[in-house]
Amino acid sequence: MIKPSLQQNPKVTVSDSFWLKYRQLVKEEMIPFQWNVLNDRGNITIESERDDATIPTEKSHVIENFKIAAGLKAGHHYGWLFQDSDLYKWIEAAANTLALETDEALVAQVEETIDLLEAAQADDGYLSTYYQIDALQLKFRRLFESHELYCIGHLIEAAIAYKEATGSERLLQIADKAIACVEAHFGKAEGKIDGSDGHQELELALVRLYELTGNRKYLDLSAYFLDVRGQKPDFFADQLEENDRLGLQQGSKPVINTVYHQADKPVIEQDTARGHAVRLVYMAQAMAGTGHYQENEKLVAAAKKIWENIVQKRMYVTGGIGSTVRGEAFTYDYDLPNDLMYCETCAAIGLLNFSNELLKSETDSRYADIIERTLYNGIISGMALDGKHFFYVNPLEVDPQASALNPDKSHVKAARPSWFGCACCPPNLARTLPAVGRYAFTQKADEVLLNLFIDCELAAEKDGKAYMIRQSHTFSEQGRTLITVEKTTSAVLRLGIRIPYWVENPMLVVDGEEVVAEISNGYTYVTVKSESMAIELSYTIAINELEAHPLVKADKGKVSLQRGPFIYCMEEQDNGKQLHLLALTGAIRPRFRSDKILGDIVCLEAEGELHVMEDDWQDTLYRVHKKPQTVPQKLTFIPYYSWGNRSLGEMQVWIDKEDAHV
Amino acid sequence: MIKPSLQQNPKVTVSDSFWLKYRQLVKEEMIPFQWNVLNDRGNITIESERDDATIPTEKSHVIENFKIAAGLKAGHHYGWLFQDSDLYKWIEAAANTLALETDEALVAQVEETIDLLEAAQADDGYLSTYYQIDALQLKFRRLFESHELYCIGHLIEAAIAYKEATGSERLLQIADKAIACVEAHFGKAEGKIDGSDGHQELELALVRLYELTGNRKYLDLSAYFLDVRGQKPDFFADQLEENDRLGLQQGSKPVINTVYHQADKPVIEQDTARGHAVRLVYMAQAMAGTGHYQENEKLVAAAKKIWENIVQKRMYVTGGIGSTVRGEAFTYDYDLPNDLMYCETCAAIGLLNFSNELLKSETDSRYADIIERTLYNGIISGMALDGKHFFYVNPLEVDPQASALNPDKSHVKAARPSWFGCACCPPNLARTLPAVGRYAFTQKADEVLLNLFIDCELAAEKDGKAYMIRQSHTFSEQGRTLITVEKTTSAVLRLGIRIPYWVENPMLVVDGEEVVAEISNGYTYVTVKSESMAIELSYTIAINELEAHPLVKADKGKVSLQRGPFIYCMEEQDNGKQLHLLALTGAIRPRFRSDKILGDIVCLEAEGELHVMEDDWQDTLYRVHKKPQTVPQKLTFIPYYSWGNRSLGEMQVWIDKEDAHV
Repeated sequence: MIKPSLQQNPKVTVSDSFWLKYRQLVKEEMIPFQWNVLNDRGNITIESERDDATIPTEKSHVIENFKIAAGLKAGHHYGWLFQDSDLYKWIEAAANTLALETDEALVAQVEETIDLLEAAQADDGYLSTYYQIDALQLKFRRLFESHELYCIGHLIEAAIAYKEATGSERLLQIADKAIACVEAHFGKAEGKIDGSDGHQELELALVRLYELTGNRKYLDLSAYFLDVRGQKPDFFADQLEENDRLGLQQGSKPVINTVYHQADKPVIEQDTARGHAVRLVYMAQAMAGTGHYQENEKLVAAAKKIWENIVQKRMYVTGGIGSTVRGEAFTYDYDLPNDLMYCETCAAIGLLNFSNELLKSETDSRYADIIERTLYNGIISGMALDGKHFFYVNPLEVDPQASALNPDKSHVKAARPSWFGCACCPPNLARTLPAVGRYAFTQKADEVLLNLFIDCELAAEKDGKAYMIRQSHTFSEQGRTLITVEKTTSAVLRLGIRIPYWVENPMLVVDGEEVVAEISNGYTYVTVKSESMAIELSYTIAINELEAHPLVKADKGKVSLQRGPFIYCMEEQDNGKQLHLLALTGAIRPRFRSDKILGDIVCLEAEGELHVMEDDWQDTLYRVHKKPQTVPQKLTFIPYYSWGNRSLGEMQVWIDKEDAHV
Repeated sequence: MIKPSLQQNPKVTVSDSFWLKYRQLVKEEMIPFQWNVLNDRGNITIESERDDATIPTEKSHVIENFKIAAGLKAGHHYGWLFQDSDLYKWIEAAANTLALETDEALVAQVEETIDLLEAAQADDGYLSTYYQIDALQLKFRRLFESHELYCIGHLIEAAIAYKEATGSERLLQIADKAIACVEAHFGKAEGKIDGSDGHQELELALVRLYELTGNRKYLDLSAYFLDVRGQKPDFFADQLEENDRLGLQQGSKPVINTVYHQADKPVIEQDTARGHAVRLVYMAQAMAGTGHYQENEKLVAAAKKIWENIVQKRMYVTGGIGSTVRGEAFTYDYDLPNDLMYCETCAAIGLLNFSNELLKSETDSRYADIIERTLYNGIISGMALDGKHFFYVNPLEVDPQASALNPDKSHVKAARPSWFGCACCPPNLARTLPAVGRYAFTQKADEVLLNLFIDCELAAEKDGKAYMIRQSHTFSEQGRTLITVEKTTSAVLRLGIRIPYWVENPMLVVDGEEVVAEISNGYTYVTVKSESMAIELSYTIAINELEAHPLVKADKGKVSLQRGPFIYCMEEQDNGKQLHLLALTGAIRPRFRSDKILGDIVCLEAEGELHVMEDDWQDTLYRVHKKPQTVPQKLTFIPYYSWGNRSLGEMQVWIDKEDAHV
């Protein structure tokens, strides 16, 4: 096993029109919009993510909370216990944008928030506005729900991004002070708290900080929190009991579902994806990263086991995860209802990063497959094409009537609201989308992997010598990817190019000569010796009718369509109401379409049939079965990520297939 | 229009072995068991009907509550606000049993409870143990949840049953005193409460009391409560505000969902089945009865409109109603998920009685169809064949794994518990099953209807002259019903015999001569002139493959099987796991089976196919679609009511049908 080398975020400049559009929306729409939200400016409607009167939707109050904590204002905390993280994610989004493009006004806004954070942070480094303002007696004493360490995790991620973008270490210093506070309070030593946060996040942030700094103490702290988790399943409940014993005023003492928190047994023994989906993937990412750098094979193997369970048994075809709103959680193998699921945008982002982390330690294109599946489908579906509206929940089947009238589906929104009471998803998108180029490459000690066909340029170093990889592609009827490598030396560079599973008849031409593309773990390798090399990969983009495992009840007799990295869906706007009465019967053709709202997209068109509703059904609910009458109907599919951008209507990813029934 | 005449419960002696078994279980198992529950005796496990820690499951405490209210004991109330009704339903069950068979010990138990009720009832007639013990300041002041009038309704129904069974008017006197208390507090007059209870029930009980006594004041009171409902949608909320204004100590002030209570608009304007399913059908039954006797055609028409909406758009094939656990409620037209539904036993009983009420005012066998559908399927499925275990929720598709691991299905029990925290369903069954003979006949001024083929004898009067109708039947391969009419006079009797929709080739022989059975509104009429007449109806019992309306998404491409009055289902015990992988492909044959647990039943057997799960699915969740491989498999169906009586396993009513897909 090769000693793992530090893998920092690759420096990638994206020029891909598909992704530049998102980067622009983040910069021009999301960042200014969220800035207003954080400052309670403007007339912003905040929606509940589901029918629940306890969700705070009056205002954001984030900046106000920090001002009160800093003593600059009087008042009480408002919002979720994790409200602080909204600001940290906003800073990270701003930083990731600044990394691409300078913007003095934006820097000034970030600096202003850093001033505020400095003022709000306690002398010992503690920073959690709710507890500072309203419940200091409970500092680190209700970890099942407090999100104190979770928020520090997001602070660290923001600090890293800001350092990478601007070189400024101001925010890193605040983060470091907060970490010192954590170190002072947590650990095995007598008198310290020997436990972890109810929401994993600090762990993965510490791995990133180790990658930035090379300082192993961060890695060790991450390992500590992973190791202590689930060792004492009653830890969270015991804290509440102790608070009572000490006579501390505290809130409710709910029965704690330790599976929800992945805290019922040691992480290394957790071999399926259980509990709250976002928590699980955040934890598993940290397991993969910490295990990799600590060369702890058991920890990496445990992370992989969880990953296999997700992608082989608990993941929607869009890369979405979480089968139920109750606990926003995983349920059991093959339980993937299309109309009740959760598929939170944050969870898909978590699965993206978890897969990316595993790719660092193991070259296998299956990880890149999931990176691609989540990015092009279940993640970007979380944002409207106007950059102003967002999904928390990304369903695979929607009937606006059901969302409005069946309370089991109150969380399944048929249209994207502009903001949520629990605003985790939009800022998570905002920090991820400008950084999408990072996932295109993985730089390892002995090789560079090209994972995604995104037009971009990687500027990198190997053994202190600069090299550059530029790629551009087209996904029109025939797929083509052009790759140029330029180096300052003749040192050998091993470049692995992923050949996606949706590629047919790949043809590889290196410096004008056709080469047999031998594929190993999903990558074909080119050894670059000269100072420059031109590689051309041409291929047919398959249009696949996918079927799900037979134990996925919800998809029985149905297929979903995929072309290239995109999963497709049908919308009422193209196919009429009652999508469930349609079936796919014939061939599928791609059609290039320029739509005012949807932009330039490749639609899929297919022969289909409509189950005709006879007149005699008028007053009848049940009748003796007759063979159904059908009429031909042309079916139109659009990429899944683009659904819900026109008028309110039905949407469906899985469609009945003529010969898919027994 | 014929002036409506009072229709009291017909006096019917049941000799049908199918129903005698239930009557025996009620007498020998349920009544003694519930007596122990009510008295907190024995080691009884009470289950939550769903994942909800607030459901009281520690004990019943019902008798204890009455003793405390009577001043015989000290202590506080325990249990639901409607806990008193458990006792009233138990008395009604006991009385309906006593009507069939004398039992001095049981009479003594009932008399003992009547002593207790007399002692507990306040001088002004008020009787509600929770408010009497713990919150008298809130008497009639939190009607949205108090169930005070609801409980009086059940007290009245118990009193009627006890009077009919024993002739004793002791309980009627308590009921009458309670009604006087209601009259003193409710009405249009200044200073009175001008509103209704959050749970309808009193209204239908008052109609029954009118039928017993002929006293119109009961009918008028029912009409008042129906009329006032929904006139002021803020009524319930206003009460809570007023309590605050008066400085009365009260509990929480939740946002009241007036649709749940059917109180958002006048009942006469409610043209669909909305809100809590039990409340809706109880209300609609009262609308039908009150409208009928008051000759208020608008009210009857409104009730019929609700009924049509239910049976044409919102009812499961088992007669179950309520599509969601959230609010135990109706949702919208054709929304009938088989694995998430509520289908509460009480709601099916309510639909039975609602249909029976409409049959009084309109001779149409469609009402009897629903009486039959609910009784033979969605009602008796609520009770195990041992008479000791009960369903609250009656699903049409069950996977024990889903019930255990997907919290959206925590209410869908895969096995019947012995008792529930909210114990409305078991005693509702206990009062209904001994009285099943009543639904076999409808006596009207101008005709007698024979609705159900149940072996029994009706003893009745027409114009003061006695007559008797005896029927017996067989549902073996060929159906046959023998009917004998005996009269003391030669006055003409018009007998309508329902020809069910599942009867094929009916042949009618009257006094040995074949007669052409002309059918009007689903009944064929025989005019009995002589003092006795023998009628023989022979028919083929159809085995129907039913399909649901195409807009019922959950049933698309599927059929359910029906033979005679019974809906069928598949169980894992007969068909193996993964029922959803089976499809019906061939002919269906009845098979007579004597099973140790299921008893003597007619099974259905059919040719089918099993979708084979290929080995290469092992680590794959999605793949490019291939035509499925199948192997032939014999399918076995059992009557739906009998499911869940063997080991824990999957169950499914709707099955994929080879040619049902487009």
